[in-house]
Amino acid sequence: MIKDIINKKRIGLELTKEELDYFFNGYLKGNVKDYQMSSLLMAICINGMSFDEVINLTDLFINSGDTLNYEEKFGTMCDKHSTGGIGDKTTLVVVPIVASLGIPVIKMSGRGLGYTGGTIDKLESIPGFRTDLSEDEILESINKCGACITGQTKDIAPMDKVIYTLRDVSGTTSSIPLIAVSIMSKKIALGASKILLDVKYGSGALVSTIDEAKELGELMKKIGSKYNREVRYILSDMNEPLGMSVGNSLEVMEAIVVLSNKIDSKFKDLCILLSSNMISMVKGISLEDAKKLAINSLESGKAYNKFLEIVKNQGGDINKLDVSKNIFEYKALKTGTISKIDALGVGKLSLSLGAGRVNKEDNIDYSVGVILNKLSGMEVKKGDTLMSIYYNNSNFKIDDNIIEIK
Amino acid sequence: MIKDIINKKRIGLELTKEELDYFFNGYLKGNVKDYQMSSLLMAICINGMSFDEVINLTDLFINSGDTLNYEEKFGTMCDKHSTGGIGDKTTLVVVPIVASLGIPVIKMSGRGLGYTGGTIDKLESIPGFRTDLSEDEILESINKCGACITGQTKDIAPMDKVIYTLRDVSGTTSSIPLIAVSIMSKKIALGASKILLDVKYGSGALVSTIDEAKELGELMKKIGSKYNREVRYILSDMNEPLGMSVGNSLEVMEAIVVLSNKIDSKFKDLCILLSSNMISMVKGISLEDAKKLAINSLESGKAYNKFLEIVKNQGGDINKLDVSKNIFEYKALKTGTISKIDALGVGKLSLSLGAGRVNKEDNIDYSVGVILNKLSGMEVKKGDTLMSIYYNNSNFKIDDNIIEIK
Repeated sequence: MIKDIINKKRIGLELTKEELDYFFNGYLKGNVKDYQMSSLLMAICINGMSFDEVINLTDLFINSGDTLNYEEKFGTMCDKHSTGGIGDKTTLVVVPIVASLGIPVIKMSGRGLGYTGGTIDKLESIPGFRTDLSEDEILESINKCGACITGQTKDIAPMDKVIYTLRDVSGTTSSIPLIAVSIMSKKIALGASKILLDVKYGSGALVSTIDEAKELGELMKKIGSKYNREVRYILSDMNEPLGMSVGNSLEVMEAIVVLSNKIDSKFKDLCILLSSNMISMVKGISLEDAKKLAINSLESGKAYNKFLEIVKNQGGDINKLDVSKNIFEYKALKTGTISKIDALGVGKLSLSLGAGRVNKEDNIDYSVGVILNKLSGMEVKKGDTLMSIYYNNSNFKIDDNIIEIK
Repeated sequence: MIKDIINKKRIGLELTKEELDYFFNGYLKGNVKDYQMSSLLMAICINGMSFDEVINLTDLFINSGDTLNYEEKFGTMCDKHSTGGIGDKTTLVVVPIVASLGIPVIKMSGRGLGYTGGTIDKLESIPGFRTDLSEDEILESINKCGACITGQTKDIAPMDKVIYTLRDVSGTTSSIPLIAVSIMSKKIALGASKILLDVKYGSGALVSTIDEAKELGELMKKIGSKYNREVRYILSDMNEPLGMSVGNSLEVMEAIVVLSNKIDSKFKDLCILLSSNMISMVKGISLEDAKKLAINSLESGKAYNKFLEIVKNQGGDINKLDVSKNIFEYKALKTGTISKIDALGVGKLSLSLGAGRVNKEDNIDYSVGVILNKLSGMEVKKGDTLMSIYYNNSNFKIDDNIIEIK
């Protein structure tokens, strides 16, 4: 039976709901072995899945754990998910903007396994900030300040966790249906009826081309509609790092700069685009009108105040935010124009500094990271500082190909 | 590196010799895990391998173990290999025919893991027959009677053993390049310069269609020529069992009937075809002339005497060959013509009787099996005996779809 199912997918046939149940639930029970699951996953990577298979697998992932429903208490809510990238700190800006407009936001985020920390790690770089709110504390937070950003309270799609771990080590991550099932099963289990997806493409992302990102976005939208979720997605370029900082405390600082409305940047534009979409979906207004509200929230200082409110509510002390005192200035070797900053290269540098983790158990150094002093398209002179590297251990390694000058 | 190699094959690119070495030898060392190997094997099953990859992998399999060279002592030799099927006892007939013509034959065979025993198991059903000849005993046997059929003396292609075991449980057996590498690495390591392959197709075989069998045969021939081996292959139908008996002692008895030249049958024709090809290659004569020699060997009794000589030389006592006394006669439920006898179905019945093994450690019951009293195309009346089932344990199960009457 196990081998029959693998063979069916090997020759490109569709698996039934019963076959998927038997195989995936069998894996959780230990009847299907790692080497059998990885073999099936590779067949899926190459031969794909039909939409029926995608829905049956999503169902199975959702039902492997708990489901939440905060809308019963707070009305329509919007969840947001980014497929991940280097320097992505949008949640820190977007949640305060949306919440400042009276829209309740419960954002459950994860820790990072990769080049930098996840949103939860970034927030924990703020001394005292608690990311392990209980269910009661979540309700209290919404009643008090309208938003919270915390870890998961319940066991959401545990099947996704074990499958993702195996995909990661068996070379079976590159499958649009598998990525879609992984993301959407969690988002649907979390219960919000509006979902905004930030689908990244490029060297630092799960998919490399804009076409693949679009295919992924469309598939997730289609899955969402099966569960009565309104899904919107935006496509964003992850060939270059997002914003000018990579690292935990450094990224919180960049978020604060944007929330204070002090500078304009591509990163700020992305935060406004994401916020506007969330506002537009929950309020049922045009994207244009929603955008005005988002910009006003930033300009008026409402968003920044909401951010301070959230930090305070969760026990954080923003004044104690700390970055390393050891700074290495990486300088331009020649004069010219920056033609490229490689996101993956910056990510690897960040990991070598200790800002990310390779294994679940690894400790993150919140105070290290990279600031890009010059961005793509800027003219530089030989000797100009291109990156400020905040380090505690001088064993980090800089690849000279990270920044290309032409 | 491990994941990079898997990803390369996932998108259908060619792996270098170094990458194959790193991956497969890494697997033997335990650095590459089962779930990574099965993932790569599935990618190979679906995306195939180039001929360079096939040769590099064959090299690697050969070099994982010992190589033999009996031709130094005995001159040109011919090895024979069957891709396996239900009721395949050709070796028991072919080796005596070829050896009776003064051509030395050292046939190293294996045990079966499947529906029936392998050649070694079949021979061990002859009380006293030794299949664990030492190297000295092999040389002595050739000097004394010109042939022997025994297990392997040395460690031939151990890489094949571990990979085959994993393929078997991970649904990755159906790959023509992987089958070709598995077979040819062993045949080349065994040293004969002439190789005859009996490539089966159908429900009881590794590949199901004649086209696939041909593709497999051509690929093995091409591999052989890279190693200066003359390779011929024949394609034979394995939709129906080979001959009229399935089971260990029963198959030895059928071989004796053919060697005694008592009946004509499709099975006998196949034995003559195989023998003629081996004789033709070693003697460098036409297939037609070789066929005359083979038929003469059977008609004159030389082949049968050679068989008795081999059995005696290896300690067997043919008079003590034993079959179970418990016989169940499976009768026709209606009158008509037999349109099909399903090889796989007979194989499963044989396994349920105890004639084969599921696990390496399982014991085989030599005395059980099936005799097909009526073959395909024959007319039968309701109540005629279709199969005589030799059993010791009455728990066997007969699927009524094994024999189709129209």
